Amino acid sequence: MSEKKRRRTEAGPPAASASASAASKKLRRPDSHAQGLRKLLKPDAEILASVREMYDAAQSAASSSKALTLSDLSLSAACREVSDCDAASVQLAIERAVLAMARSILAGRGFSFDVPSRASSNQLYVPELDRIVLRDKSSSRPFASLSTVRKATITARVLSLVYAVLRRDIHVTKRDLFYTDVKLFQDQSQSDAVLDDVSCMLGCTRSSLHVVASEKGVVVGRLVFTDDGDRIDCTKMGIGGKAIPPNIDRVGNLESDALFILLVEKDAAFMRLAEDRFYNRFPCIIVTAKGQPDVATRLFLRRMKTELKLPVLALVDSDPYGLKILSVYMCGSKNMSYDSSNLTTPDIKWLGVRPSDLDKYRVPEQCRLPMTEQDVKAGKDLLEEDFVKRNGGWVKELDMMVKTRQKAEIQALSSFGFQYLTEVYLPLKLQQRDWL
Amino acid sequence: MSEKKRRRTEAGPPAASASASAASKKLRRPDSHAQGLRKLLKPDAEILASVREMYDAAQSAASSSKALTLSDLSLSAACREVSDCDAASVQLAIERAVLAMARSILAGRGFSFDVPSRASSNQLYVPELDRIVLRDKSSSRPFASLSTVRKATITARVLSLVYAVLRRDIHVTKRDLFYTDVKLFQDQSQSDAVLDDVSCMLGCTRSSLHVVASEKGVVVGRLVFTDDGDRIDCTKMGIGGKAIPPNIDRVGNLESDALFILLVEKDAAFMRLAEDRFYNRFPCIIVTAKGQPDVATRLFLRRMKTELKLPVLALVDSDPYGLKILSVYMCGSKNMSYDSSNLTTPDIKWLGVRPSDLDKYRVPEQCRLPMTEQDVKAGKDLLEEDFVKRNGGWVKELDMMVKTRQKAEIQALSSFGFQYLTEVYLPLKLQQRDWL
Repeated sequence: MSEKKRRRTEAGPPAASASASAASKKLRRPDSHAQGLRKLLKPDAEILASVREMYDAAQSAASSSKALTLSDLSLSAACREVSDCDAASVQLAIERAVLAMARSILAGRGFSFDVPSRASSNQLYVPELDRIVLRDKSSSRPFASLSTVRKATITARVLSLVYAVLRRDIHVTKRDLFYTDVKLFQDQSQSDAVLDDVSCMLGCTRSSLHVVASEKGVVVGRLVFTDDGDRIDCTKMGIGGKAIPPNIDRVGNLESDALFILLVEKDAAFMRLAEDRFYNRFPCIIVTAKGQPDVATRLFLRRMKTELKLPVLALVDSDPYGLKILSVYMCGSKNMSYDSSNLTTPDIKWLGVRPSDLDKYRVPEQCRLPMTEQDVKAGKDLLEEDFVKRNGGWVKELDMMVKTRQKAEIQALSSFGFQYLTEVYLPLKLQQRDWL
Repeated sequence: MSEKKRRRTEAGPPAASASASAASKKLRRPDSHAQGLRKLLKPDAEILASVREMYDAAQSAASSSKALTLSDLSLSAACREVSDCDAASVQLAIERAVLAMARSILAGRGFSFDVPSRASSNQLYVPELDRIVLRDKSSSRPFASLSTVRKATITARVLSLVYAVLRRDIHVTKRDLFYTDVKLFQDQSQSDAVLDDVSCMLGCTRSSLHVVASEKGVVVGRLVFTDDGDRIDCTKMGIGGKAIPPNIDRVGNLESDALFILLVEKDAAFMRLAEDRFYNRFPCIIVTAKGQPDVATRLFLRRMKTELKLPVLALVDSDPYGLKILSVYMCGSKNMSYDSSNLTTPDIKWLGVRPSDLDKYRVPEQCRLPMTEQDVKAGKDLLEEDFVKRNGGWVKELDMMVKTRQKAEIQALSSFGFQYLTEVYLPLKLQQRDWL
């Protein structure tokens, strides 16, 4: 580590900030409580021991109990899920579908697609799996019917386009797909919807179709992986980090000596952690989708969690939106429920910033924000969600949020100093095993 | 290069897409014009020769004529610009300002800040520089005045915070800065505005103050640089690319054997270029801010252009918004005009997609979109902008756009095949030196 980097990560406030805090004395009394908490911190070795316990628990849980599946619950006949398939098997599935169509036509019966319903009435939350899956209802989409001829044609076209993409061994976006036949698709929502249909029909994930979403996420820390054959060492990605690739099927060879994954809601906190090289002090992988999680980041997080068997700790804003984001990572979004098993990462721990932290860390009143009516409603709605109800600790926290009607951003911790997050708050959280 | 990668980048349509295009025959006639253009393509060596001419021109232009400055135009007294300063000199400037304040107070005169005006009435477009700068008007901000005491206090506080950040050798976001003293700043717009004031007062860029914006951009291709001491080889960043670091002052040691920089408006086009490893066929650096350019990407582009002396070619949507984005890269945005010399990259060539391309490449009618009234107005407004008027070719193109009232996205080229962009459109553009 260079002298510079060491200086940046040393504990204790440097002499320089003395002048700043002297200036601030006129404006507000210095928060002695915040400095008091700093004194609670034990040596890093002891904190690491507590982290290692969590790591060991996650490792043994992952290896002893294999993840539940629909068939374990005898639901595989009644419910439908898609899985990751390689290009060859998706092509085979398309060829089979086309052959079946051809046979049906030759037999004088015309052709028809059997398309699983993705309507919410066909969705089911399975508590054992902690995610939403599709029931088995499906509908027929015959070519020889005035009401379905258009959709049947679009379905055939999308199948043929996906086939071409897979044969070329490339990846395209939904927008690319739409533009290959605007005349037929008319608007993108039509080709997008049929793409999801095709995914369900073939029983494979959308990423298996090589149709990808745009990437937003970045990753940094104790992780090495290959992106399209290039070896990426995430401890050597500077402060900017590595952009998470849009196509998960080109990601491979994950290796890590991290003890946990730190999932961060926002860019600014990610930057603080990356600049302070937090992962050197506490071996971890730091990942963010910069707000609402995109599909690429969700796939990447799941991949890390399942292959490396690491516990995941989440750092989000203390507001309903922060928890909503956690719920997308953990349980998926409703409109992609057929793909939930591949997109979701169960068992994420809520590290912070939690409503109870506001008093515990004495976040100044002026750094807390009043919740709007809409916020309160969103909080109350969350209290009705199964994934919240299952976790007593979360219910308590959320209750407190709704009652106090106060929210706070991760950035509010900057009121105790720019590096309070990395030097005091997170180490103390880890030391006290303070996650839910 | 692996067999896979080679297959992905070969020219000519693979056998696989024959079935797809056979299927599409029923739906629309195959576009023979698009395939005809493919035949126009010369061997890559000849295309590269034409690219090399552009590269040589950019290199010699950069080394023969040093960039014009305000003082060359005898405007340095009348106009104000900030420049990149290292942490030590910014600290020195703050110490000097504070000493001057102390002396003034000891002499019984109280203290006052002299703050440059950033109002639009104080802005000036300098055609020779092709950017907006600030005139020299400034206003006094005395502490001992009811109307300015608050702002003077905020200014002192921001100076002290910036000083602490620089001494710690860290970087923070504007949001972090705000949260260090919410009681004083009240809302973030106040600390943000004073931060810009401080930047002007000290004569240094905002990034020199170590207050950074969040990053959005990614880069891939023939570039090696260091991010906070880590060596990054952008030919080995897979498809996802390297996230552009938020703090440009930690970026160094740029090396490249590229012949040009390809600036891409959108994510989807970036992904296509990265997956096809376009930079291996035509040595280039590919960069995108995923839409509206952020400060980090603008700083990074400028840094590449000035240090590597590479020509910059832009690939944007054929609509007023695409051109607006180009204008931000080239001339800056109005509210940061004091920093324009450090944020802008002059002399970007408009490669495509241009309004004249729609007919030249026979983009199907259904892939063109009608412009809304608002689009047309934005187009007409652009025609009034100095940076457009200076370039006859741009005026012509924009005139055509407004008259035909048609726009098109980069993705519209997918109507000729997913890889038409990388296999035909861009190579032909380069071969024909078709940029403005």
